[in-house]
Amino acid sequence: MSRKTSYAILGTGALGGLYGGMLANSGVGDVHFLLRSDFQQVKSAGLRVESIGGDFLLTSPQVYQSPADMPKVDVAIVCWKTTANDALPEALAAVCGPRTLVLVLQNGYQIEEDAARIVGAENVLGGCCFLCSNKIGPGHIRHIDYGRIAFGEYSPKLAGSITPRMQQLADEFRQAGIDMQPAEDLQTVRWRKLVWNIPYNGLSVILQADTRAIMDSPAASALTESLMRDVQGAAAACGSAVEDEHIQKMLGDTRKMVPYDSSMLLDYRAGRPIEVEAIFGNPIRAALKAGYRSTKIEVLYEQLRFLGERQTRNLTPVT
Amino acid sequence: MSRKTSYAILGTGALGGLYGGMLANSGVGDVHFLLRSDFQQVKSAGLRVESIGGDFLLTSPQVYQSPADMPKVDVAIVCWKTTANDALPEALAAVCGPRTLVLVLQNGYQIEEDAARIVGAENVLGGCCFLCSNKIGPGHIRHIDYGRIAFGEYSPKLAGSITPRMQQLADEFRQAGIDMQPAEDLQTVRWRKLVWNIPYNGLSVILQADTRAIMDSPAASALTESLMRDVQGAAAACGSAVEDEHIQKMLGDTRKMVPYDSSMLLDYRAGRPIEVEAIFGNPIRAALKAGYRSTKIEVLYEQLRFLGERQTRNLTPVT
Repeated sequence: MSRKTSYAILGTGALGGLYGGMLANSGVGDVHFLLRSDFQQVKSAGLRVESIGGDFLLTSPQVYQSPADMPKVDVAIVCWKTTANDALPEALAAVCGPRTLVLVLQNGYQIEEDAARIVGAENVLGGCCFLCSNKIGPGHIRHIDYGRIAFGEYSPKLAGSITPRMQQLADEFRQAGIDMQPAEDLQTVRWRKLVWNIPYNGLSVILQADTRAIMDSPAASALTESLMRDVQGAAAACGSAVEDEHIQKMLGDTRKMVPYDSSMLLDYRAGRPIEVEAIFGNPIRAALKAGYRSTKIEVLYEQLRFLGERQTRNLTPVT
Repeated sequence: MSRKTSYAILGTGALGGLYGGMLANSGVGDVHFLLRSDFQQVKSAGLRVESIGGDFLLTSPQVYQSPADMPKVDVAIVCWKTTANDALPEALAAVCGPRTLVLVLQNGYQIEEDAARIVGAENVLGGCCFLCSNKIGPGHIRHIDYGRIAFGEYSPKLAGSITPRMQQLADEFRQAGIDMQPAEDLQTVRWRKLVWNIPYNGLSVILQADTRAIMDSPAASALTESLMRDVQGAAAACGSAVEDEHIQKMLGDTRKMVPYDSSMLLDYRAGRPIEVEAIFGNPIRAALKAGYRSTKIEVLYEQLRFLGERQTRNLTPVT
């Protein structure tokens, strides 16, 4: 390739700001950032990334407030929350040409469907990010732990192998310092990520607790493990094997991790919508369709729906 | 009977203040109230009861700060929370003679055991109160809805029938205006009460919500019903039949009820211990022993243990 690969970062927050920032800062990619509330701040003061891999400031990133102003790109990376997907049709229409790949890095299950409906499943890749990163201020990202992305083809026609375009994308990301791992089976990757997201995102909001508080409590850590087993059961019903060792590793890694407020907890505290359907509703429904009842996850799902709806209605909690 | 039946009210709060107050105010009983924090207030200003059945003020009730000062009585009524049962041996030793009956009106399952260990199972009755009543200030009770007590013999030797002493007790309570219903099977009464307590007490604390907020939410009311079904399953395993109609009645009654903060929510907000073991741990363990796994209730149990322990440790929530 003579010219750099061009990227559109849809949502320049904890994920998009970090990975897009690394692609731009390393000089590997020609990166175009879509921003909303932080546009003016980043336009004037740049994008600031504090990362365990090294801090940097992008002084004049290519930033856009409207997708209509963005160029067509080679790769569009969907980084915002699924709750913002109403904006996806306009954004993808703007940045996608016929050969644009869409990489969906959102959390949840079957959340590539929105992009697939717009650009066709064969143009969609999905990935899961295993990292602790928060946006701590406008245009200011703090990446405190981990950082790996596991990704794969979304289209059932292409799933099951590591395609050349995946290999190329992985190579580029790695040149930018990102631990980018191609996976043959995206769905299993998603289930393995849900093993973390379902208990920790859910309980962090419901119990108002960070990962340390959850793991330090015998009750909450036992509940975490039993929720992970419920995810394992749901995954198995849907054809994805999650090994016991993965559960133990997630528990062990989180126990060793710096105390971390999940992104769902931060969203909830900030009064933003929480991703209840992507992370809880979709997996429960998919498993049920496959004959598995996610009994414990259902409890968290209903609790989070209650909390999310109360928040959306802007009703003050009784407290 | 030539003289009035004498009663010791152990714990003069939402329950003990109301029922003990009605027994005294009606002139039916010779009532002796044990108080702790409210002693001086009630001693000087009386016991104030606002009730849907009629307001009254007991201007000079017989009040005690220490069980040692109390007389032996015919009936000792345990009204304080199970979390205060450390004080039970001293209190029962003080007020119980060889023929004293102990009526345990606490919430939960197998919570008569503490009293039975002290005075013998054959002297213990248990009862469940179906009412909305709160202590809203020192010596000040507000009874806003319902009021029925269902009670029965605790000893397996006497269970299964309505004994003469039960009939006599029921008659006296009714003379005092209390809807007191003898039941042949105390354990089934307890399970039927747990059908209410487990979802509403649990969810009110976890979601910080009153009964109205829970029932107005499709998510939380669906969760409530599924928790009730889990209680039904646990009860069945333990030999107690809870009919579907009972579940529907509990849901319907609560929907029609004035918005109510469960006693567990009030305890939690006030920083007092919550009755996690009596209401959640004991039923779960009893059902498990009988071969039934209370999967959904377990989630609430672990969540409440976390919240209760955080509170007990006096750690500030992360919020």
